[in-house]
Parts: sequence; C-alpha cells; structure tokens
Amino acid sequence: MNFYTRKWVKPEDLNAHNTLFGGRLMAWIDEEAAIYTTIQLGTNGVVTKYISEINFVSSAKQGDIVELGIKAIRFGRTSLTLTCEVRNKISQKTILTIDKIVFVAVDADGKPVPHGRTEIIYTDERLRE
Amino acid sequence: MNFYTRKWVKPEDLNAHNTLFGGRLMAWIDEEAAIYTTIQLGTNGVVTKYISEINFVSSAKQGDIVELGIKAIRFGRTSLTLTCEVRNKISQKTILTIDKIVFVAVDADGKPVPHGRTEIIYTDERLRE
Amino acid sequence: MNFYTRKWVKPEDLNAHNTLFGGRLMAWIDEEAAIYTTIQLGTNGVVTKYISEINFVSSAKQGDIVELGIKAIRFGRTSLTLTCEVRNKISQKTILTIDKIVFVAVDADGKPVPHGRTEIIYTDERLRE
Amino acid sequence: MNFYTRKWVKPEDLNAHNTLFGGRLMAWIDEEAAIYTTIQLGTNGVVTKYISEINFVSSAKQGDIVELGIKAIRFGRTSLTLTCEVRNKISQKTILTIDKIVFVAVDADGKPVPHGRTEIIYTDERLRE
Amino acid sequence: MNFYTRKWVKPEDLNAHNTLFGGRLMAWIDEEAAIYTTIQLGTNGVVTKYISEINFVSSAKQGDIVELGIKAIRFGRTSLTLTCEVRNKISQKTILTIDKIVFVAVDADGKPVPHGRTEIIYTDERLRE
Amino acid sequence: MNFYTRKWVKPEDLNAHNTLFGGRLMAWIDEEAAIYTTIQLGTNGVVTKYISEINFVSSAKQGDIVELGIKAIRFGRTSLTLTCEVRNKISQKTILTIDKIVFVAVDADGKPVPHGRTEIIYTDERLRE
Repeated sequence: MNFYTRKWVKPEDLNAHNTLFGGRLMAWIDEEAAIYTTIQLGTNGVVTKYISEINFVSSAKQGDIVELGIKAIRFGRTSLTLTCEVRNKISQKTILTIDKIVFVAVDADGKPVPHGRTEIIYTDERLRE
Repeated sequence: MNFYTRKWVKPEDLNAHNTLFGGRLMAWIDEEAAIYTTIQLGTNGVVTKYISEINFVSSAKQGDIVELGIKAIRFGRTSLTLTCEVRNKISQKTILTIDKIVFVAVDADGKPVPHGRTEIIYTDERLRE
Repeated sequence: MNFYTRKWVKPEDLNAHNTLFGGRLMAWIDEEAAIYTTIQLGTNGVVTKYISEINFVSSAKQGDIVELGIKAIRFGRTSLTLTCEVRNKISQKTILTIDKIVFVAVDADGKPVPHGRTEIIYTDERLRE
Repeated sequence: MNFYTRKWVKPEDLNAHNTLFGGRLMAWIDEEAAIYTTIQLGTNGVVTKYISEINFVSSAKQGDIVELGIKAIRFGRTSLTLTCEVRNKISQKTILTIDKIVFVAVDADGKPVPHGRTEIIYTDERLRE
Repeated sequence: MNFYTRKWVKPEDLNAHNTLFGGRLMAWIDEEAAIYTTIQLGTNGVVTKYISEINFVSSAKQGDIVELGIKAIRFGRTSLTLTCEVRNKISQKTILTIDKIVFVAVDADGKPVPHGRTEIIYTDERLRE
Repeated sequence: MNFYTRKWVKPEDLNAHNTLFGGRLMAWIDEEAAIYTTIQLGTNGVVTKYISEINFVSSAKQGDIVELGIKAIRFGRTSLTLTCEVRNKISQKTILTIDKIVFVAVDADGKPVPHGRTEIIYTDERLRE
C-alpha cells in the first residue's frame, strides 16, 4: 500500500473532545479515494457506491501528522474496490482501517459503464528523484 | 426512526462533479450520530469505534434539503449501536443508509466504561407544540 | 415550536474568547430558516428580507449541543414571518431568540410573488416511528 | 461611517441559489463589529447582546466585492451601540443595513463592567499615506 | 500604505502550534490583493503572476486583530505590482511583509491585455465621515 | 523531488473566476512544507521565516487533481531551505513553483535552536509495497 497524502491536524479538524473529528477524517479519505480511483480508471466519471468495515483503531490529536494509504484490491467490470489505512506518519501507529470502498464508473447520466482497466497503474517512478 | 437535523446543499458542499461530496455527507452523519449518542447515554465521553455497510443509494445536488435519521438498535454494556438513513427532505428518496455505527462510552483515559443505559430515551415531547 | 437541527460546538465554531462565535450561530439559523421556509412555501425561490430583535441570552461553549427551533407566525401574501429560539439541548437553557425573520417568495427575476400558503404544514408524522 | 474590511464573494460564500449566503454575510458583520468594538473600548472582553432591524436591501453575486461599514452611535456605561451598512464596493449600492448592534463589556465571569469610553477613537490617520 | 481589511484570529485560523496558520494568512493577503487590483485596474480579469520576498516577522495568536495593508508600487502595461504589510492592529507590530506581488490583466482566454491605468485611484474620500 | 499530497479541486477551492484560488493553493503548500520540515528535522518546533520567488505558471480548474512536491535544498544550523513545485497530477503540467521556503527550528520561546540535521531522511521505503 502506498501512502501519499498527508494532513497536519489543526484546531479546525478537532471534535468537541479535542481529538481528530471522525467526520473530517472520513472526508479526507473520501477525497483521497476519489483521486486514487480517477487515476487508476483514467476517468473522473466515478462515484462512491459502498463502504464497509470502518475500524477506528486509535485517535489523533492536534499537531499529529497523518498519512492516508489506499490500494486497489479488485477490478470489476464497472467497479473498483479499494482498501484503506490511515496512520500516524511519525509513530506509524494505525488510526483507522477500511476493508472495502467500492467506486463505480458512470456515464453522464450516472449509469454504470465498463472502465476497461484490470490492474494497478504504477505512478511511483514519479516519486523517484 | 426520527429525523432531526436538516442540511441545505450549498456550493461549499459539492464535489468536483457538482453533486454532494460524500465526505461532507459522512462528516454530517458523524456529528449527528455523536449528538444522538451523547443524548442517549447522558455523557459526552463517547467515541466512534466501527461503521459498516454504508450504501450510497442516490446523490443530492445543490439546493436539495437533506435530513438525517438515526436510531439506536442495540445497547451493549459499554457500547451503543445505531443505524442511519439520509433522505431528501422533499422527495423522501433515500440518499444513503448505514447499517451499523458503534459508539463506545469511555473514561478520561479513553478506556471503555459501562454506560448504564438499556433503552431509547424519547425526547420527542419537546417536538410537540 | 419544533426543534429539528442540532449542532455540536467544535473548535471551528468558536470565537477568539472560546465561546460559540455569534456569526456562526447566525449562519446556522439563516440556513435552518431558509429550509423551514422552503418546506412551508413549497418553493425554494425564497429570500430573507428582514430580521428583528435578536437577543443573545446566554453563550455556548465547546462540546455543547445546541438545537434550533423555528415557527411560522404569519403568512402574508408574498411573505412568511418566522420566530426563532436556540437552546442548549441538554439543559434546555435559551441561548438566543429572534422575534421576527421575514422571507419573501420571489420569481426568477427576484420579484415578490404570491406563495398561496396560509398555514403551517405539519411534517411531524415523519418523526413518529 | 468608515468602511474598512472588504470581501470578495467566492463560491464558498454562496447559498443554494448562487447568491451571497445571508448567514455568511452575518458572520462577516459579527466579526467586523467585534473588531470595531474591541478597538473603541480598548478591551477584548466584549460580547454581542442585541441586534435589531436587519434589512436585506439587495443581493450580491460571485465576484462582487463588498465592503463593511460600522459606526458607533451610542456609548452607554457598559454598552456600545453600533450601526452597520454593507455595500457593493464598485457600484456603492447598499446590500444590507443594521440599525443597532449592541455590545457589552464584560469581566472574566461574563458580568457587565463599565468601559469608561464616551466617544469614537479615530484611527484614521493610519489610513493616510 | 492604506490598511483596510481586518481579521480577528479565531481557533479556525490557528496552526497546530496555536499560532496564526501562515497558509491562512497568505490566503487572506491573496484575497485582499486581488480586491485592491480589481479596484485599481477597474476590471476583475486579473490573475496573480508572481510573489517575492515574503518575510514572516512575528507571529499572531488567538484573539489578535490583524490589519492588511496593500499599496501599488508600479503600473506596467499589462501588470500591476503591489507591496504588502500585515500588522497587529493594536500594537502596530509588523507580522509579515511582502516586497512584490505582481498581478496581470488578462482577457477571457487568459492572455495579458493592456489595462490602461498609470496611477493609484484614491477611494479614501469614502472613508471620511 | 517527491510528490506526496494530492488535492481534488472542489467548488470550495475556487476564486471568483472559477479557477483555483491562489490563497487556497498557498495554504495547501504551507501545510505540506511544515509537514515535510517536521519529518526532516524530527521536531514540530518549526516556523516559516521566508518565502521567495513564487511563480504562478498555469491555473487549475474544478475537478483537477493537483500534487504538491517539496524538496530540501539546504540544511543550515537552525534553518532548513525547501523548494516546491505544484503540478497537475494527470497532465504533469506545472501550476506553481517556489524557489525557496525557509523554516527555522525554534525552542518553546520561539528562539532559533540548532536542529542537528544535515541531510534528507528518506522515508520512501514506506511507499514500496
């Protein structure tokens, strides 16, 4: 699993208990998953259909750096299934895991369309100096 | 299931396709579920532990009014399990369902503690004129 | 008066004194009033025209749950007059009251049009299980 | 009346009709009024107590520049009463007027305290080049 | 240099160290500079091209009032060069300075166009009572 | 240069011309640079001191995916100098470049302190599956 996007937990990200607001974290993941899917399927005509088994393993606090990891685990005909892990960048401790996030490629009317992809496209070479 | 909180979908709530951003919707639900749990358990020492089976049934667009429904379905010793539905307020069409959201009552150190509640507290009389 | 929408006061909602920012509270009310009016008049072609007598009775702090109550008090030919109360959900203590919020139904050019409604439409049955 | 703070209406400031969200405008005014009061009373221990007669004269749209004008109209023993006008910076057309915004100086416990000021302190010389 | 727009530093504006988030400050400046340029060039077809020598002189904390000063220092054929200073409104201590911010007037296709202006338009009379 | 954090341009990120708001982009960069510095210096006691030569090369629009690249170019005794490039993730077209961003390690009183680091710490192995 590759970890790209990082976030710095600021006061605007906290819940009323002064820990990272779970809703903010889920919004971060949803954006990162949409970005990952857009890159893998080569189209931005994609919508979230289903998410399952979100486990909140540990919390994060102000000042923590968190990193978001996403990986494709199944290419369907019109769908793509991802798995997700969010970690503390410094301690590498898991904050949250999601077993499955399913996106579907859709046409302009929102109807599922085949995306024609069958495997992960690596864009990692861009990460090498 | 009772529907309390309503949201008016504004430009700031949209994703890059001009439909309601799923991450924003999940943030709204997480806040409403935390509020519901705080009221039912009589403590704000509660944390989200697990969410499963989120189905994105239909989308919402700018100008739509959406309402969030939450209901307790199981009182554990330290936990409370909720179910959730989000609907379009006008058309009553389902936008999203969540089978299970599990909150746990915790002490100041974040360790689970018994909450002592066994059934739903109705606050509905406040809604009668 | 019915109280629907609830808010959980988070760090992002605070002013520089660490109490609920009055401007944030007014933004919440304006959205809830627009939603209420849209439901009552059956059109989303409505604009705020006038607000009077806003009393800030007590403040709210981080972690408080506040609930917003709105009620129609006068149906004009093109207008609808509302009254508003915001309370602490747990203590039921009043935070703010507004005597009058006036909305006007408008056409596509922003000119007032008769809305044809004369009384409150109850949507409360939806709140019963 | 002096006009200091200016805002550029961006998509994040719009309501569902694509005009300036009234709640956003009220939040801008509340912040500017608190700043004005803090400067005039020489203390940041001030709270909003009352607002009356808010007239929404015309709307603003994306790309408009709006300027906020505030002026003190009455110095009470513990209070300060302001009046407000919001205009389109280019056309000078009035967008909103507020007859009275009343702030009260408070001590650490939130109890009103005399502020000792009786007239407007001009800080305009700073505006001269 | 004239100082117009003021900001009240609230929790949502802080970084993870509880001082004013530099990114927030830069966003405030970018908006104010775009407003200033729009007024001076009489068109809102302007884009930021270049910024240089941003010095972070001192920090700001929650509750501080900051004021943003902008001044045109060079009118090019298609460009306008500004200089900027941000100060604490009360102590007048400098928070940040920017030597040069360059905007360019552009047509609908984003190509530079002559703006026809050669000197600062004073709008200060509006500030006099 | 490594590119980690990605952003999906949504309506909330746009300026009044419906292109990516420069201030939002600078806020994203400031956060990413602070994260990078915190990881390289092994302390979160760091503050931005200076930024120079920001070139706005091309714009971004709603729906674009942008990626932020940062690289350390000089380790001083108390400072770290970074360079930055922001690109469109799909087209690889440069959006913005920054020649120098200088951070300084500080103690609890905000005074510069030696950070003891002299070269880039690679965390890339974490990116390998």
